[in-house]
Amino acid sequence: MHAVVFEQYQTFPVLTEVEKPVPGPGEVLLKVAGAGACHSDVAVYREFREGQPGAQAPGFVLGHENSGWVESVGDGVTGFTEGDAYLVYGPVGCGHCSYCSKGQDTYCEHAATNPYAAIGLGRDGGMAEYVTVPARNLVPLGDADPIAAAPLSDAGLTPYHAIKAALPNLAGGGRYALVVGLGGLGQIAVQILTALTGATVIATDTKQDAMDRAAARGAVTVPAGPDQAAAIRELTGGRGVDAAFDFVGATPTIATAKASMAIGGRLTVVGIAGGTVEWNFFSTPYESTITNTYWGTIEDLHEVVAMYRAGQIEPDVERFALSDALEAYRKLEAGELSGRAVVVPTL
Amino acid sequence: MHAVVFEQYQTFPVLTEVEKPVPGPGEVLLKVAGAGACHSDVAVYREFREGQPGAQAPGFVLGHENSGWVESVGDGVTGFTEGDAYLVYGPVGCGHCSYCSKGQDTYCEHAATNPYAAIGLGRDGGMAEYVTVPARNLVPLGDADPIAAAPLSDAGLTPYHAIKAALPNLAGGGRYALVVGLGGLGQIAVQILTALTGATVIATDTKQDAMDRAAARGAVTVPAGPDQAAAIRELTGGRGVDAAFDFVGATPTIATAKASMAIGGRLTVVGIAGGTVEWNFFSTPYESTITNTYWGTIEDLHEVVAMYRAGQIEPDVERFALSDALEAYRKLEAGELSGRAVVVPTL
Amino acid sequence: MHAVVFEQYQTFPVLTEVEKPVPGPGEVLLKVAGAGACHSDVAVYREFREGQPGAQAPGFVLGHENSGWVESVGDGVTGFTEGDAYLVYGPVGCGHCSYCSKGQDTYCEHAATNPYAAIGLGRDGGMAEYVTVPARNLVPLGDADPIAAAPLSDAGLTPYHAIKAALPNLAGGGRYALVVGLGGLGQIAVQILTALTGATVIATDTKQDAMDRAAARGAVTVPAGPDQAAAIRELTGGRGVDAAFDFVGATPTIATAKASMAIGGRLTVVGIAGGTVEWNFFSTPYESTITNTYWGTIEDLHEVVAMYRAGQIEPDVERFALSDALEAYRKLEAGELSGRAVVVPTL
Amino acid sequence: MHAVVFEQYQTFPVLTEVEKPVPGPGEVLLKVAGAGACHSDVAVYREFREGQPGAQAPGFVLGHENSGWVESVGDGVTGFTEGDAYLVYGPVGCGHCSYCSKGQDTYCEHAATNPYAAIGLGRDGGMAEYVTVPARNLVPLGDADPIAAAPLSDAGLTPYHAIKAALPNLAGGGRYALVVGLGGLGQIAVQILTALTGATVIATDTKQDAMDRAAARGAVTVPAGPDQAAAIRELTGGRGVDAAFDFVGATPTIATAKASMAIGGRLTVVGIAGGTVEWNFFSTPYESTITNTYWGTIEDLHEVVAMYRAGQIEPDVERFALSDALEAYRKLEAGELSGRAVVVPTL
Repeated sequence: MHAVVFEQYQTFPVLTEVEKPVPGPGEVLLKVAGAGACHSDVAVYREFREGQPGAQAPGFVLGHENSGWVESVGDGVTGFTEGDAYLVYGPVGCGHCSYCSKGQDTYCEHAATNPYAAIGLGRDGGMAEYVTVPARNLVPLGDADPIAAAPLSDAGLTPYHAIKAALPNLAGGGRYALVVGLGGLGQIAVQILTALTGATVIATDTKQDAMDRAAARGAVTVPAGPDQAAAIRELTGGRGVDAAFDFVGATPTIATAKASMAIGGRLTVVGIAGGTVEWNFFSTPYESTITNTYWGTIEDLHEVVAMYRAGQIEPDVERFALSDALEAYRKLEAGELSGRAVVVPTL
Repeated sequence: MHAVVFEQYQTFPVLTEVEKPVPGPGEVLLKVAGAGACHSDVAVYREFREGQPGAQAPGFVLGHENSGWVESVGDGVTGFTEGDAYLVYGPVGCGHCSYCSKGQDTYCEHAATNPYAAIGLGRDGGMAEYVTVPARNLVPLGDADPIAAAPLSDAGLTPYHAIKAALPNLAGGGRYALVVGLGGLGQIAVQILTALTGATVIATDTKQDAMDRAAARGAVTVPAGPDQAAAIRELTGGRGVDAAFDFVGATPTIATAKASMAIGGRLTVVGIAGGTVEWNFFSTPYESTITNTYWGTIEDLHEVVAMYRAGQIEPDVERFALSDALEAYRKLEAGELSGRAVVVPTL
Repeated sequence: MHAVVFEQYQTFPVLTEVEKPVPGPGEVLLKVAGAGACHSDVAVYREFREGQPGAQAPGFVLGHENSGWVESVGDGVTGFTEGDAYLVYGPVGCGHCSYCSKGQDTYCEHAATNPYAAIGLGRDGGMAEYVTVPARNLVPLGDADPIAAAPLSDAGLTPYHAIKAALPNLAGGGRYALVVGLGGLGQIAVQILTALTGATVIATDTKQDAMDRAAARGAVTVPAGPDQAAAIRELTGGRGVDAAFDFVGATPTIATAKASMAIGGRLTVVGIAGGTVEWNFFSTPYESTITNTYWGTIEDLHEVVAMYRAGQIEPDVERFALSDALEAYRKLEAGELSGRAVVVPTL
Repeated sequence: MHAVVFEQYQTFPVLTEVEKPVPGPGEVLLKVAGAGACHSDVAVYREFREGQPGAQAPGFVLGHENSGWVESVGDGVTGFTEGDAYLVYGPVGCGHCSYCSKGQDTYCEHAATNPYAAIGLGRDGGMAEYVTVPARNLVPLGDADPIAAAPLSDAGLTPYHAIKAALPNLAGGGRYALVVGLGGLGQIAVQILTALTGATVIATDTKQDAMDRAAARGAVTVPAGPDQAAAIRELTGGRGVDAAFDFVGATPTIATAKASMAIGGRLTVVGIAGGTVEWNFFSTPYESTITNTYWGTIEDLHEVVAMYRAGQIEPDVERFALSDALEAYRKLEAGELSGRAVVVPTL
């Protein structure tokens, strides 16, 4: 079958022919419906070198945001019907530590010695006609469109997990949330916050069209600029925001979010731009916290799918045939995409 | 000044002349903007006899849902400006037990020996031109309409408190809430649930027009009938509801709500019709709970006002001049009101 | 190998010869260290008839409280070392629904159609020399004694799960907990509450020696009797208990616990005696809840093992050779055991 | 009466004669039992200059950790009996904002314009024969010793509030807590953590005798040194601590605590040494948070007193007559105290 393969470090992937996979024990073979192209893929093939922490050894099919239809099942798997549509939870941990036992493979205690991090990250992913996944990583999509769903497994799950942990901060009347960075994850964050909370959602980005889309989704937008934190605080009547989500993670964006917090607020840095800020008792509103998150849990993904099926999340996607998959990555790197690129092998 | 006074047990109140009150130490004198007429008032003057638990000794001005403008302040009170509009938190406990210290006077440890329960319940209320209230019971309304706000201090606060305690059950995608009884409190419950959660809100009442109003506010309605619990469960895809709020509290309504619960769901009985249901390990979804609540806290009321000011709660009100206040109670008893009756002395 | 087999409904099990099992894909073969005999086993072979809800079709090895040493692994299993000791999480659900994804197989959405409920409940258990279990059901014991650990997988996990859900009710100074029923689960409940909370633990049982053991573990005991709820309330200074755990579940025990609750308290019925109580708005302290629970999660079991390894839980056990296993069940039925019977094939 | 008065900025206080106070409306006059001397007092009279943020204008009696017996009550106060012993909650906010309504005067929305911060901080405190306090600031001590209780209103309340917010992080088996700095607050923190959680409490200080006292209270101690964070992590089996409390707050202590955190852990800086650390996505365990806290709530203080009355907290105190109060401050500044100095006017 055709597949997009990461063949060597610091090298653009290739579209090539590989063998159709066979599901192992406990696995399901999916005919791929959609596979999202993600910035992390670019990091995988452009940035890492052998032996670096986080590096995934080359020689695998890319694609960690996948959906598909059940084609067949491996040994010991029951309860699936051929043709049913599923979204795929990407992370695959040891399967038996405390974190994996609760479907949070992202924080597997044996991550350092596991052979791969996720489907499409060290192990063959969904940029192909078929992909195999552990049965427990599958979330049923019912009759919802599986193609637009694909990005939800990362671009939906990641903001969902970050927001869910902050829901106690946003529970009640008179709350404020801040979303910094309105790309794929930020746009979905606005939709999740608008749907799940009564908070006023304040959103910001350097691109006006991204702010316009967020505004159409119910956010109040604040442009970048030297007085941004003051402008945000003013929108909150002086109290600051109860939860902030930074999908960029650069020093200035974290600093802006940090300067916008209310007493007891929670700032979650999701973006991995690697910015650094200073923390000091006297420059922090009392009991406000700063933290980070990474991807999410299987249970979270069930809840993301419930929101998608209820029409509460609508990812912005741009579809590409499998034969155009490399063009999708090229456009992603060039910043030419208006939504998440989804590779659709059946196109 | 004119006032509606509860003069003796089991007797309709009278509109009469009383002295304009003077604010005591720690109190504020309000010029009344609105005073809501509540079913509990009817219980106060129709049902109770001297010495019964819950009875409030006659000889006080009715009205425990009040708003008004600052007229003057008593000894030791600072921080108020004449003419500013406030909503009044009704309950007044001992002021120094653990519950009162956190603004939950409803559960005052000294309730049994306190001289009264609330402003308008044992102590002069707001069905008059002026009313005095402890400074800490005041919640600023800013420039929001104080008249429509009046019912929020009970018909808004009570469902808010019940719902806030259930927000953890409703936090996330794919949740379901049930509202039984769509009178004043139930309608506001639908508005609060729709604003603060992403849950599908299922609502039911015996009156079609009440269901129509709830539907216009975003609820999915289910008519009464023998298969009601089954119909509710079907709407949830079989899982049941994560939180139910019964604003009636009769045996059949509690039973219906109880039969509709999901694993881990929370059923809160708010209505005081006094129904009884049986609880048995095997007839209850695992980890689902049943509980009751009563009114709310001052902090809750601040949050209710925030929702009101943001347009997330719009009480249905019918305005009456103070001279028509007795007519408001008559209509309330006769079931002839379409919204909460609010007595407006300035009309 | 030798094994205790449940051969037909309503019939005492037999000690017989069966084939040594072979681990399937995703499974581990354990050499059994200990297998606890539980009252549910007696229900399985004494009470149920074919087709009844909850019945487990005969023809399997009993024992759902198991521990053992890794002997070998099935296809696709890595990360285990021969000879390492593990405790076994019993429940086995579909493996891919939302509940199973988070290690809460007890509430599997497909329970009704699953072929069995747990290891030792519908599928071969640990009353034998060897047992096979899914890899994810294993919790490492390190160098702690695996034999005394065996009952923790039910008699430890069940109270732990019930208590963990109630920890928010017990979080802080001045809290009170109530344990009703001081058999195997109740004794461990006392140990867990004493270790994990600062609450005063009140305990009761009809047997004085059970109360003495609870007292030695830090509980304040209250004998049964007509004034029991009043005596309990007096111990709390009148406020009632913040969390109660009823390990009997008969009508009088639930009623006593219910009458002992504080405002906001949580009553969890764990025992399955099937008692029924009436719930009414006016006979319930505000915001107190009543609920039930069943067994626990894999994550919970990791935490139970942590407490066991730290010496915070010490199960009372009585050891039996595999050849005496039927005698263990006989004594269990006769009420002649002083602790949990653990069958030890290596004895 | 005699009193210790802060007379001018940057000047040691004086023991002088002042008028016996009269309780205002809503206030209670206490005969002082004990008044703790706190490092913040030293900051008040040594460090601040007029107009600095946090400065309290001179001309008031020191002492913000107070206990006493009811002597008389002001206008509008009921429910107190002469001679009953109470502990005093120090902070006094506006009394009617959302924070004050829930007894969290520490975060009063009008702090910037309030005339004082607390009893003994801008308003006359307890280093005198008598003190007046708002009725709601009083927590009943029953028959517990009021003298040793005095420091609890700050040295007990502050760690309690910080720990209570972290109890969810410590709820369950296998948890680890870290206490950095074992002076008055740190010693009480160890006692609270040991009583309220099942966590292994790791404690550290530069003074061996402070570590010895913590060890006697159940902590595992780790000496300072270059490998301290590694030593702490090793005690946790590599996972890190679930909650850390830094009662120093200098750059190296915050850095050590930060380097010791587990995934999802909560680091609370309580000490105000003003240290600064860097926060970066990649140097932080996922979902671990860093935050600060300040003092506590009235409800917290009720719970602290419950622990004190149950023998779960025993402050280390050194008693001084009122005539020796200045000597107490001298020793405090010189570091010559072995416990909290409590001035006892009845000595």
